[in-house]
Amino acid sequence: MSDASIDVLGIGNAIVDVLAHSDDAFLTTNGIEKGSMSLIDTARADELYSLMAPAIEISGGSAANTMVGVAGLGGAAAYIGKVRDDQLGAVFAHDIGAAGVSFDTAKAVEGEPTARCLIMVTPDAQRSMNTFLGASATLSPEDVDPGHIASAAVTYLEGYLFDPAPAKEAFYKAADAAHAAGRRVALTLSDSFCVDRYREEFLHLVETQVDVLFANEDELKALYQTDSFDDGLQALRNHCPVAGLTRSEHGSVVLWGDEVHVISAAPVDKVVDTTGAGDLYAAGFLFGLAHGRDAKTCGHLGSLAAAEIISHFGARPEADLKALASEAGLLAG
Amino acid sequence: MSDASIDVLGIGNAIVDVLAHSDDAFLTTNGIEKGSMSLIDTARADELYSLMAPAIEISGGSAANTMVGVAGLGGAAAYIGKVRDDQLGAVFAHDIGAAGVSFDTAKAVEGEPTARCLIMVTPDAQRSMNTFLGASATLSPEDVDPGHIASAAVTYLEGYLFDPAPAKEAFYKAADAAHAAGRRVALTLSDSFCVDRYREEFLHLVETQVDVLFANEDELKALYQTDSFDDGLQALRNHCPVAGLTRSEHGSVVLWGDEVHVISAAPVDKVVDTTGAGDLYAAGFLFGLAHGRDAKTCGHLGSLAAAEIISHFGARPEADLKALASEAGLLAG
Repeated sequence: MSDASIDVLGIGNAIVDVLAHSDDAFLTTNGIEKGSMSLIDTARADELYSLMAPAIEISGGSAANTMVGVAGLGGAAAYIGKVRDDQLGAVFAHDIGAAGVSFDTAKAVEGEPTARCLIMVTPDAQRSMNTFLGASATLSPEDVDPGHIASAAVTYLEGYLFDPAPAKEAFYKAADAAHAAGRRVALTLSDSFCVDRYREEFLHLVETQVDVLFANEDELKALYQTDSFDDGLQALRNHCPVAGLTRSEHGSVVLWGDEVHVISAAPVDKVVDTTGAGDLYAAGFLFGLAHGRDAKTCGHLGSLAAAEIISHFGARPEADLKALASEAGLLAG
Repeated sequence: MSDASIDVLGIGNAIVDVLAHSDDAFLTTNGIEKGSMSLIDTARADELYSLMAPAIEISGGSAANTMVGVAGLGGAAAYIGKVRDDQLGAVFAHDIGAAGVSFDTAKAVEGEPTARCLIMVTPDAQRSMNTFLGASATLSPEDVDPGHIASAAVTYLEGYLFDPAPAKEAFYKAADAAHAAGRRVALTLSDSFCVDRYREEFLHLVETQVDVLFANEDELKALYQTDSFDDGLQALRNHCPVAGLTRSEHGSVVLWGDEVHVISAAPVDKVVDTTGAGDLYAAGFLFGLAHGRDAKTCGHLGSLAAAEIISHFGARPEADLKALASEAGLLAG
């Protein structure tokens, strides 16, 4: 893998987050499922936005957040995703570029505006996401250059890419290109409802194409239609060589060939907003993987990056992840 | 004043803030004066933005921030300012409306995009502002309805309005309309460089049209071209019936007819970002004034609101100002 010029290349829905505080009653009144991601159309986006509290805009997108985390740890990261040539598209492109991630996917010049995710953060720090896919849904196989993919040690794909049909095609093209070049393919299941929508395809993918899987407890259970985390874990061991399975405050479990590691969550003074916790866990883990670190270190790098992101509003790191990881002794050796 | 349906109506440049952390070297390298506001053109805005760290977008604008503060304290607030019919204009309109401020100025349908202020926040929590006025510069007298102004107990004007010529005309029209209706006119000097640009006119305004003046120490000194805060204070006493003069961590001085009150700053655990400190001081002060409170209470309401805003990133309140003021015993009576 030493000949790869990119450590991790992420592909995902390119989204600007619109974050506001809300109470639980707001979720109930507006039919929003707490903690999940719902896809919404233009009319619903306009309606929800008109009802939302004053908000702030921060670039988001699951795989994009992960790539910013990889770059923040000192890794070479690249991103493929679609925005429009509008103001929020410029914001997205600026932010990911300024974070040190290589991003040059052509912007859409017509059609829907840049994707937005309306996120309500409740007092318990949980986030409920309502995504208007907009231009991100027009990502297509043409945006994926096999030579680009071949230059990355790991290609990281969002389950969310299955929602827009052309993006799903791009997903498969990228996975094939990665394997053709002898590289690794990583997948995050993204959301338990997303797993429900595409279970059979995800199962097939995990059994045949995925070298590194990320899932939280709900997603793993949804994949194997079980109520038991351990049953899901045992099923997965037969299917996928490497996995980072996250369990919120209970830490994570890392599968690594025959090894199984149970990793503690990193301490957090106060959980402010869980948006991006899974994305940043993947960032730490993938950075470690691309740099040849062992299973345990990869898990702890994931925990450290996740702890940073949940200690503030938004899913892009505010602290210097590289310095934090160095202080924690996770970059030595 | 009891027949006024609006407590405070603010008029200002309608701006979305683009906030990022920076170090002092970034300011030096890019010729940015720390702590001040510079006007920039499109080319400079594009250049600075391309160099800036990943940012977040939060609605701003000096008088707009103040009106959000007035509404947050439970006051009836309205705002006049110009955005374009673009994505950032929609963000501005959403945020000020969701904060409870009445805002219905017609959006520009052509010309420059919605105004942006690129703000670098250095580790000492100081903010350096670079404003691209864009559509906000097209605010004109047509946007000011004398009947609307007459319904407000106080009309609050930014000194920054003097920068775009049509906005300055709107400024004078509003001040005349307020006085014709027997209402009060309040002015903030905005920035010491702004005072330097328009000193003679500001002096004339203060002597003839301003009932309530807001200025920080630098602005007061610039107005009277003195190195002594006290000299400025004594000069102002002959000119303006009510004033709130802010001195950062040294608190404020309130002039109120013959009275002079020296008010302490409210305590802050950690100053994170001073953006909006003056705006929110004015919010607390004006809320008190419109509600018939005494000089000392107005000053303390200003201190309280300013302390909230400098404890976090951005110039829009995150905490419940009304609850904070109530806990501090500033709403009783």
